[in-house]
Amino acid sequence: MTPPRYEVIGITGLPEIRNGDDLGRLIVEAAASQGTALREGDLLVVSQKVVSKSEGRVVPLADVTPSPAALAMARELAKDARLVELILRESRRVVRMDKGILIVETHHGWICANGGVDQSNVDLDSASLLPEDPDRSARALRERIHGLTGVDAAVIISDTFGRPWREGLTNVAIGVAGLAPIRNYLGAQDPAGHTLQATLLAVADELAGAAEPVMGKLNRVPVTIIRGLPFERGEDTSKALLRDPSRDLFR
Amino acid sequence: MTPPRYEVIGITGLPEIRNGDDLGRLIVEAAASQGTALREGDLLVVSQKVVSKSEGRVVPLADVTPSPAALAMARELAKDARLVELILRESRRVVRMDKGILIVETHHGWICANGGVDQSNVDLDSASLLPEDPDRSARALRERIHGLTGVDAAVIISDTFGRPWREGLTNVAIGVAGLAPIRNYLGAQDPAGHTLQATLLAVADELAGAAEPVMGKLNRVPVTIIRGLPFERGEDTSKALLRDPSRDLFR
Repeated sequence: MTPPRYEVIGITGLPEIRNGDDLGRLIVEAAASQGTALREGDLLVVSQKVVSKSEGRVVPLADVTPSPAALAMARELAKDARLVELILRESRRVVRMDKGILIVETHHGWICANGGVDQSNVDLDSASLLPEDPDRSARALRERIHGLTGVDAAVIISDTFGRPWREGLTNVAIGVAGLAPIRNYLGAQDPAGHTLQATLLAVADELAGAAEPVMGKLNRVPVTIIRGLPFERGEDTSKALLRDPSRDLFR
Repeated sequence: MTPPRYEVIGITGLPEIRNGDDLGRLIVEAAASQGTALREGDLLVVSQKVVSKSEGRVVPLADVTPSPAALAMARELAKDARLVELILRESRRVVRMDKGILIVETHHGWICANGGVDQSNVDLDSASLLPEDPDRSARALRERIHGLTGVDAAVIISDTFGRPWREGLTNVAIGVAGLAPIRNYLGAQDPAGHTLQATLLAVADELAGAAEPVMGKLNRVPVTIIRGLPFERGEDTSKALLRDPSRDLFR
């Protein structure tokens, strides 16, 4: 029997991304230059950081005037008040504030540290924000790549989030286009004859995580190809990965 | 530049695993039969379920007498009292009990639904428990495979856990041998010159998740090879993935 298998291929050679860059074209060209031109069935995992840069979602801290609330919180957290101001602007509510850590719910509904506001891999004295609508970003990349190559690649926009109880961060999906982010086993029978219950698998998060070990934080590999996996196609957005607050025991 | 890449290869053809089976030998043989014999640098992701079966951690429900506490909780949760009894035996404390869901902290320290007690893919009227010490199980598999083949493969024992806030389950690591479960960027500089802070990546969880899409729940692929990834070797156990309660904002 042919074993099920897939490949995770980092895309190297992308230039430093700037506001207004045609990220879809740059990805297509870089993939082709390294001999792994995109093909039908590919799924791309794209780091939030390059998407935000191409969409102008990088803010010079000198342009940020902290509100009194941000100043007060910044003192308590021992953080830069301009960063706290940006975090509050990106947030719908503060979930926890303790031990120098600020966990918020973003306007998208993601619960994460610092609302996705981040200073790594951007110019010193700047901070990057999450894309305004990462699902829209994913759709735009998918369409651009289709227009350039004829290939209908699925796209995941990934970011690196922490989680309660477990140490370490993992990459998760914050935007998707062209794949079903959740695989649903509800009602299916396992080989032993049990009907599987409550079995929704967050495939988009697992594949965002699968990409991370080749992306890293230091090696300028912001895009990864998942190749050969027969994933389920679909038009659901990343909202499928948000737990309904009424079903969440940890709000 | 050669792109960084790795492969995820499911191992098919394993028999139904029973108490006392030599799982290491069965894995070595099944990998060889399908033309992907284990080689140096491989990392194996092994489903908790087959490890538990080989270690006799499957309990016939007819042998379980629920305590009064289990009977009371079972009524409230609308669950089988014998299952609740098993869950309580596997647990150090109950974290949440609501909406028919029982979240506990296991004796290992994992916080998960039902303490890892599970009825899928075992005989009807039985339940499987997590391995007593999944790190020991991982080490034993690594040693057995080394003894049989001379290959020093790293091993992750995986299980499928939910998480707060995000819909869907993902595979995570509950036992490791031979790889550093966490990659630590503390103090490293990114290409833009920022010193990265608080950047611990839970690589073992990401790779457990990477394996899940080829393992599935229905296709009898309980073991997956991660091949070609230059992961960091190490002798830390999965305890490195447990967040210290004093650093956890969500206890």
